[in-house]
Amino acid sequence: MNRFGEIFTFTTWGESHGPAIGCVIDGCPSLLDLSPEIIQPYLNKRRPGQSKFTTQRQEQDVVHILSGVFEGKTTGTPISLIIYNEDHRSADYGDIANKFRPSHADYVYYKKYGIRDYRGGGRSSARETASRVAAGAVARQVLNKHNIQIIGYIRQIGCQQINDANIDFSQIDNNDFFCPDQSAVQKFTDYLLDIRKKGDSVGAVIELVVKNMPIALGEPIYNKLDARIASGLMSINAVKSVDIGIGHDAASKQGSQLADEMFNNNGKIEFSSNYSGGVLGGISSGQDLIVRFAVKPTSSILVPRSTIDIDGNNCQIITKGRHDPCVGIRAVPVGEAMLATIIADFLLLNQARKI
Amino acid sequence: MNRFGEIFTFTTWGESHGPAIGCVIDGCPSLLDLSPEIIQPYLNKRRPGQSKFTTQRQEQDVVHILSGVFEGKTTGTPISLIIYNEDHRSADYGDIANKFRPSHADYVYYKKYGIRDYRGGGRSSARETASRVAAGAVARQVLNKHNIQIIGYIRQIGCQQINDANIDFSQIDNNDFFCPDQSAVQKFTDYLLDIRKKGDSVGAVIELVVKNMPIALGEPIYNKLDARIASGLMSINAVKSVDIGIGHDAASKQGSQLADEMFNNNGKIEFSSNYSGGVLGGISSGQDLIVRFAVKPTSSILVPRSTIDIDGNNCQIITKGRHDPCVGIRAVPVGEAMLATIIADFLLLNQARKI
Amino acid sequence: MNRFGEIFTFTTWGESHGPAIGCVIDGCPSLLDLSPEIIQPYLNKRRPGQSKFTTQRQEQDVVHILSGVFEGKTTGTPISLIIYNEDHRSADYGDIANKFRPSHADYVYYKKYGIRDYRGGGRSSARETASRVAAGAVARQVLNKHNIQIIGYIRQIGCQQINDANIDFSQIDNNDFFCPDQSAVQKFTDYLLDIRKKGDSVGAVIELVVKNMPIALGEPIYNKLDARIASGLMSINAVKSVDIGIGHDAASKQGSQLADEMFNNNGKIEFSSNYSGGVLGGISSGQDLIVRFAVKPTSSILVPRSTIDIDGNNCQIITKGRHDPCVGIRAVPVGEAMLATIIADFLLLNQARKI
Amino acid sequence: MNRFGEIFTFTTWGESHGPAIGCVIDGCPSLLDLSPEIIQPYLNKRRPGQSKFTTQRQEQDVVHILSGVFEGKTTGTPISLIIYNEDHRSADYGDIANKFRPSHADYVYYKKYGIRDYRGGGRSSARETASRVAAGAVARQVLNKHNIQIIGYIRQIGCQQINDANIDFSQIDNNDFFCPDQSAVQKFTDYLLDIRKKGDSVGAVIELVVKNMPIALGEPIYNKLDARIASGLMSINAVKSVDIGIGHDAASKQGSQLADEMFNNNGKIEFSSNYSGGVLGGISSGQDLIVRFAVKPTSSILVPRSTIDIDGNNCQIITKGRHDPCVGIRAVPVGEAMLATIIADFLLLNQARKI
Repeated sequence: MNRFGEIFTFTTWGESHGPAIGCVIDGCPSLLDLSPEIIQPYLNKRRPGQSKFTTQRQEQDVVHILSGVFEGKTTGTPISLIIYNEDHRSADYGDIANKFRPSHADYVYYKKYGIRDYRGGGRSSARETASRVAAGAVARQVLNKHNIQIIGYIRQIGCQQINDANIDFSQIDNNDFFCPDQSAVQKFTDYLLDIRKKGDSVGAVIELVVKNMPIALGEPIYNKLDARIASGLMSINAVKSVDIGIGHDAASKQGSQLADEMFNNNGKIEFSSNYSGGVLGGISSGQDLIVRFAVKPTSSILVPRSTIDIDGNNCQIITKGRHDPCVGIRAVPVGEAMLATIIADFLLLNQARKI
Repeated sequence: MNRFGEIFTFTTWGESHGPAIGCVIDGCPSLLDLSPEIIQPYLNKRRPGQSKFTTQRQEQDVVHILSGVFEGKTTGTPISLIIYNEDHRSADYGDIANKFRPSHADYVYYKKYGIRDYRGGGRSSARETASRVAAGAVARQVLNKHNIQIIGYIRQIGCQQINDANIDFSQIDNNDFFCPDQSAVQKFTDYLLDIRKKGDSVGAVIELVVKNMPIALGEPIYNKLDARIASGLMSINAVKSVDIGIGHDAASKQGSQLADEMFNNNGKIEFSSNYSGGVLGGISSGQDLIVRFAVKPTSSILVPRSTIDIDGNNCQIITKGRHDPCVGIRAVPVGEAMLATIIADFLLLNQARKI
Repeated sequence: MNRFGEIFTFTTWGESHGPAIGCVIDGCPSLLDLSPEIIQPYLNKRRPGQSKFTTQRQEQDVVHILSGVFEGKTTGTPISLIIYNEDHRSADYGDIANKFRPSHADYVYYKKYGIRDYRGGGRSSARETASRVAAGAVARQVLNKHNIQIIGYIRQIGCQQINDANIDFSQIDNNDFFCPDQSAVQKFTDYLLDIRKKGDSVGAVIELVVKNMPIALGEPIYNKLDARIASGLMSINAVKSVDIGIGHDAASKQGSQLADEMFNNNGKIEFSSNYSGGVLGGISSGQDLIVRFAVKPTSSILVPRSTIDIDGNNCQIITKGRHDPCVGIRAVPVGEAMLATIIADFLLLNQARKI
Repeated sequence: MNRFGEIFTFTTWGESHGPAIGCVIDGCPSLLDLSPEIIQPYLNKRRPGQSKFTTQRQEQDVVHILSGVFEGKTTGTPISLIIYNEDHRSADYGDIANKFRPSHADYVYYKKYGIRDYRGGGRSSARETASRVAAGAVARQVLNKHNIQIIGYIRQIGCQQINDANIDFSQIDNNDFFCPDQSAVQKFTDYLLDIRKKGDSVGAVIELVVKNMPIALGEPIYNKLDARIASGLMSINAVKSVDIGIGHDAASKQGSQLADEMFNNNGKIEFSSNYSGGVLGGISSGQDLIVRFAVKPTSSILVPRSTIDIDGNNCQIITKGRHDPCVGIRAVPVGEAMLATIIADFLLLNQARKI
């Protein structure tokens, strides 16, 4: 199932080493401004080859609009977006053609489908996330109508964390890590250079905050806002954990500590805290939405590991391709994009819930 | 949206203080054994009033089968299950009729729908989870055909944890906490008695393990096994976090540390570890499935908190109803049930993926 | 798949000879008036045993609301409706327990599911349509907010037709046939008495007209208004044909004959004709919606037919049960109900298509 | 909603006067042979400019596969197909840029979306059906595994019909009309030349027959085989009627006349007739599937008609573009394609219904 969403939906297609990737957005309202220029900046944030901390694969990720837009406006018909693959040097992938990378999707794709595009990750490659980012850029045109703003950033890279006291959203785009804590940038730099030198990789934690979040989005019981977010973020490559608001730490707290108390401040409802992360009973409360997700280190590393080949023989593998030492960095714009499509979807869906 | 699943689906209905709750299971294969006696034990695990650590609301939760079963076998038609509400003393809920509990769904339901069944939690009550457990019991009849076994247990209650070295699954049903570590039972008992005395509540962490998990379940890219599990577990009342395998800790690790190396041991594929939790690229690997979720403390407590009433006036609230000091305990059978329905669904869906 | 609809959805359950039938309506907006008294009149129109031209099975079809309504208003949560089966004398069905009625679903249900509730039609019985009528009654509460009116009537019973010149909607409820042509009533009466005496059955044609139909309902390309109507009506038992507007006769006409010309009459758009039946390109035009469907004669007849039994032996069958000589009569309220749910669904869905 | 199907699904995109059209097929099983050469013949059957009875728009309709196929085999990942528009002379469409064609989708698209690609039919153009044909060609690779054969042909063009006694399937591809009655070809030719000379258009009736149809396909109650077929065929441009088996004529018949009696002929179940058209209770019976649909004449004609312009002024319109005098002819491969995708979908879905 390569489709996401209920009303604002998108279907992605394409392999890492095929001619192109893309997506079809179905259910986007008409009369929104849309052009490649509006989408491209988001793709540029995600695209590889931009710093020494991401894969050196060179992709310009230029997006083309094939349908659904007329004279600069969406028409309500499906929006087909295409991004041609430029640098798909499959030569690099020789070793993985007939060996399975441990902790990689190679093995299970082969077992599920009986065939695998051995030139690269194929469909399981993080390259697919470019399509998500393009869809997210379109979703933002819906969100802009409501002045909804999504901010994503790195909280942690491997064992290095930011300091909450230093968070300054204006810093996020001033470094290679989408890091809101300027004081952590050098620390991340040194750490990742060392990891890369070792041919190894590390995980990361990404946080997403939504400002001007409308109240009443989310559909109980099985299409809750937080449940959909959990699904959307967990569907991103390498994600192993999703937290809403206080998240996992809620387990060790008492109810009296976590009550986000409410006050009427001259007609405006205010909250004493936001442990709930802006979601109550699966419905948005109007507070900032706050979610986090953890990304594991990529399994494509230069450190030799034991595995089996396609014929079942025991062997060793090292992955020589051009991989990100920390895939979590480029997961920031991907997470933002998924969240954008989810909120756009629930905004539209909520309009269908009243008469 | 009160429906869950793609092939094996269920739709739940009913409020905490209405005449009954129930569910309709659509897509269950025919010719499976089914009777109330097969479902009831799972409901008994979840039902309230069984120990001093769960709500004292008295419900026998007797399930009736209204359709879809003939002479003890499923017929392939929808299975309608009903559980009558017996003890819905709405008198207890006087204070919440016109005040919003902080961190509770009361407020957002009212904002979303403009009306609220003020006699209790209504639809947002954890009472709805009885329907999930019933659906899960039916799903287990599918899993039994494949000898798949789901084991759920408590890892943590508030700030108290089990000791991994002491885990013994045979102990889970021998205490009031679904605790696999016999040595932690007294600790949990003392701790929760104290919490209850204070009129407070605490969170919990639940772990689910699936044995004999088939390989190749899960549908890339947007219906991944882990994404659906995240959605299903996050949809349970009060859940704030979902982890797969190593989960959040993946962020601080290196790729070389987390590789689940593979070996061919006389024709059987074995793994050196299971940091992936049995899921690779959203598809089951055949290893045990391992997931965890964290439940926040219930917001229905006796400790007074600031809030607003239905007219927007500032006020204080205490919730006098009969609530669980730790809702996480009864979340164990609910989490198991959700996982059962998900695996049954993907098992059937996977059959549709080959020709 | 026992669910219908996208936003306003309903799932039906129950067998003809089980304890009850019912449905769960999910996605109905909140704050609509709802009570059993509002639903019951529609069920009364459909229920059996009312005239000598419908089955003599005695069912009061009393509907109970189990959830989703509080103090006479819908709450936005699922509406569970139940109708108990009263007169399920399965003794009548002795002969069909192990023989397959020709042109009946018995055979294929048995082949598909490997099991069959042989006490009656089970799930394939037209009894299921009572649940549709109940769901349709709820949908009408949505339509009433827009003053949308659905009128259904018989055009043809067997080889007897109404005269278009005599159509008078006020006559529809004044006879046993939902016949808008008073002059045809005696003709239908005599004809059907004869058919019944022969132990045979006949088909019928039903027409549905929607007044005050809003413009812009329907979702191109694969959820067109007419496509959904075709699906919804064809899903009714025994329906073999669906026509929109001029329908099948369009084939023999020229484009110049069928153009519904448009005029601006002092700001009001008017049409010269309505061959399109109120649908253009799958979207409502604001003209009256006009659809027709043809129902085959029931295959449960007293005339002996050749068939096979459950063991594959050749044999003869006559069906002694209490069946309608013309199931098409009771299909009128069922068709109306399906159309009501479809229009309610598209009304709500259309609200999600704009920003 | 531009997606069709449950398991074997496709999403189409593209406007008649944009750069390209295409579709994404999601859910096709892996390991099927697929190449452009396999798809192209079906597109060639549908493409315009082939005879004097179809539009003179010149389109080669060359299909390209962008994903989902590796070394000539499907991989189980989404199959993205693209067809570039070559001859989109929008100059021809001057008159329709600001006038609405009577009985055409122009008007309602404008009312629904507030914007319209006035260069041509845009999304409502029959050009979209090329994508359906491409998807159908892929579906046939599923059907071929079961030896299922779909045969489509013209029964009627305007007031001219074929003679059933002369039907010879081997003749279908030997004339410009997909006509199985060789003796009707000259009649159709003369008739259509006359219609074209008048600048007018006519309707048609198409019949589809499926040989080697498996038993047990179709999902009661709301995803019945015939209901889905009705939806799929009604979604084709200009279709106003769908019949299954005997279809509309069932209304005038008696139950004793329409019973498809069953016999066990040495272990093979045989039927005395096929009035049911191969569907009982929404499930395939194993008999040939027989369906018909009626197509109205295109509303794009040279005969002047009254209408309004985009500003609401009364005016006359003639449509000078290059239109088909009988769109029903090219609807034959489109109907076949829709049926192919439906059967492939139900084949796969049925595999998910057993354990």
